[in-house]
Amino acid sequence: MSTPINPAIAGLNAPPIPIVQKSARDYDGRLGDLIDLSQAVPGYAIHPKLGHHLEQAASRADLLGYGPIEGETALRGAYSQHASDIYGASITPSEIHITAGCNQAFVAAALTVAGPGDTVLLITPYYFNHDTTLSMLGIQTKTISAGPENRYLPDLSQLAAAITPDVKAIACVTPNNPTGTIYPTGLMNSLFDLCTRHNIWLMVDETYRDFLGDGEDQPQPHALLQRPNWRDHFIGLYSFSKSFCIPGHRLGAITAGAEVVTAISKIMDNLQICAARPPQHAVAETLELLAGWRAENRVEIRRRREALMAVLAECEGWEIVTIGAYFSYVRHPFKDRSSTDVAQFLAKERGVVTLPGTFFGEGQEAFLRFAFANVSAEQLNLLKTRLN
Amino acid sequence: MSTPINPAIAGLNAPPIPIVQKSARDYDGRLGDLIDLSQAVPGYAIHPKLGHHLEQAASRADLLGYGPIEGETALRGAYSQHASDIYGASITPSEIHITAGCNQAFVAAALTVAGPGDTVLLITPYYFNHDTTLSMLGIQTKTISAGPENRYLPDLSQLAAAITPDVKAIACVTPNNPTGTIYPTGLMNSLFDLCTRHNIWLMVDETYRDFLGDGEDQPQPHALLQRPNWRDHFIGLYSFSKSFCIPGHRLGAITAGAEVVTAISKIMDNLQICAARPPQHAVAETLELLAGWRAENRVEIRRRREALMAVLAECEGWEIVTIGAYFSYVRHPFKDRSSTDVAQFLAKERGVVTLPGTFFGEGQEAFLRFAFANVSAEQLNLLKTRLN
Repeated sequence: MSTPINPAIAGLNAPPIPIVQKSARDYDGRLGDLIDLSQAVPGYAIHPKLGHHLEQAASRADLLGYGPIEGETALRGAYSQHASDIYGASITPSEIHITAGCNQAFVAAALTVAGPGDTVLLITPYYFNHDTTLSMLGIQTKTISAGPENRYLPDLSQLAAAITPDVKAIACVTPNNPTGTIYPTGLMNSLFDLCTRHNIWLMVDETYRDFLGDGEDQPQPHALLQRPNWRDHFIGLYSFSKSFCIPGHRLGAITAGAEVVTAISKIMDNLQICAARPPQHAVAETLELLAGWRAENRVEIRRRREALMAVLAECEGWEIVTIGAYFSYVRHPFKDRSSTDVAQFLAKERGVVTLPGTFFGEGQEAFLRFAFANVSAEQLNLLKTRLN
Repeated sequence: MSTPINPAIAGLNAPPIPIVQKSARDYDGRLGDLIDLSQAVPGYAIHPKLGHHLEQAASRADLLGYGPIEGETALRGAYSQHASDIYGASITPSEIHITAGCNQAFVAAALTVAGPGDTVLLITPYYFNHDTTLSMLGIQTKTISAGPENRYLPDLSQLAAAITPDVKAIACVTPNNPTGTIYPTGLMNSLFDLCTRHNIWLMVDETYRDFLGDGEDQPQPHALLQRPNWRDHFIGLYSFSKSFCIPGHRLGAITAGAEVVTAISKIMDNLQICAARPPQHAVAETLELLAGWRAENRVEIRRRREALMAVLAECEGWEIVTIGAYFSYVRHPFKDRSSTDVAQFLAKERGVVTLPGTFFGEGQEAFLRFAFANVSAEQLNLLKTRLN
């Protein structure tokens, strides 16, 4: 008899991405190359200067031992400056904690604000790993729904009504995953005020922050870090994976008050002592250096957004319900079929890999997530024959 | 008013290593270079071939995206073969899960076997991160004490008596951290039988496995993986940090039955999707290639062990209570002072950095942990003047 496994883990959904990747492997190539709009991975190459620094740092003797739990001084310094510039704020290095990617940033932040029996509010459609992370930790979730009728923005009165004494935080994602929706500054202010009033935390996953805006200039994502009391209620989560094209190196960051950073360092010491050190130095060296390159990528991604909009307009029955910084949330034309079946069919029979809405919570059967930033405008144009 | 932090985190001890590192920074150098016997970090350089592969892999385009959650096929294959050789067993790649270091392996294993309200048995003195990890996750701990009277080996009848229905696993460390003690094959068999009888898990942290033995040949650490039912009760944890001198890259592995590996992959997807990919390939390339180099290091570490034994024999009042694969547990001569004070004094005034026994559980005031493998035999000889 095998010893039982923790039911909270045994009952957890299987990781979604490998499921669709499996369907994609069944595609026989009959319509040409696979068009992979599933996992959010930049479809262009790393900048050679970052590649050079990654190589240089990889075997540097002084980076092979353990490093500071909170992150390398060089990266905390460079990133706090960078974040200060973006948010028009004064963020110090002691208000930054480096992590191994943004999922880990969320785990650490969630454990910081809530324990077993506490509740975190999620907004449906939610990023699936937020839901499974909380379940895995024994933290309850309560969801409020944000749908097309309100452009996928949460309704404040619904949120307020959901804040019972067990609720310790609201978790949101902007630019949103899966919908691409960008939460306006006013909404972010209201969310923060709501959290202040109820003395709970606002956790904001800003993985797709660098893809905001329509051109070279990156607009300010929100004004919360200009609030004098931001440290008491706000925890910001970020990933270097997307903007720097290095998911394989696992690197993210948390922006929070020093007290939260201290709590997170206790968690991180247990989770993995410190994030891998060499990529931290490579990113610190290139954070400002590659600002122009990132701006060019923003322009390229706008081009892709326009290409997707143009091609889906020519696909009978397909409807873009929202499109934003990195993702589009798309209504498929198969009214009687679940998005899981549709995604499987598209992957296997049409060589188009997307994520089904069902991965992102209840009531999402009619939708698919398209990570349009992954592929070139030319590839997106091929959707015309693949989807019709 | 700042929003409260999860009391399980707020109440957690601060990470121990930075505390002693802080004391070490106060040392003014008056007696010569710092002798750092605190955090377990190999005191010799990485092998140049591994360095070369780390550099090569760091910017490889095919490793910059996300990888398989369970680990790179190359490393799971190479490590399952390597582990099969070491344990005289047949371990398949599907029975390996790669992690970002052994702390993360423990987090994932602990969550797999226990949830909030469940209990895991620890053996005092325990590795401190095991204790803090379980607390952080809301998992209860129960300890049984292993002391010098039994050469720091746990007593089976005490363990058996502690197994109540809430106990889901026993966690042990062999070669032991902090004592260096090597659990004999017979004891490991008995521990496994005990777990089988009570249908609970045996989690074995074998971070220091490669430093077993007195010479070039690495003896078999235990015979559990030859048991036909090992997959039902055993979870093995390992770190590449020590033997390969790459703590800064964060790489570890779990050996477990496929069902446990599936559960762990759900947890890892939330924790950080996958371990950093480039170092996985570098280690896969050099795992067999550097077997001879690792054997030489074992011989070198034996030399260091002998040097420590020789020098402490000449230090008035200091007593090695146990010495093993990587660590020695040492009784300090200051009967009326806590090991925390003694460690602080040694670091600051004598430039000798050790970890106080108090970090490893109750009743450890009289002891310090010496990570003797960190420093050369010549440096160890300097302890004669520093400790007297």
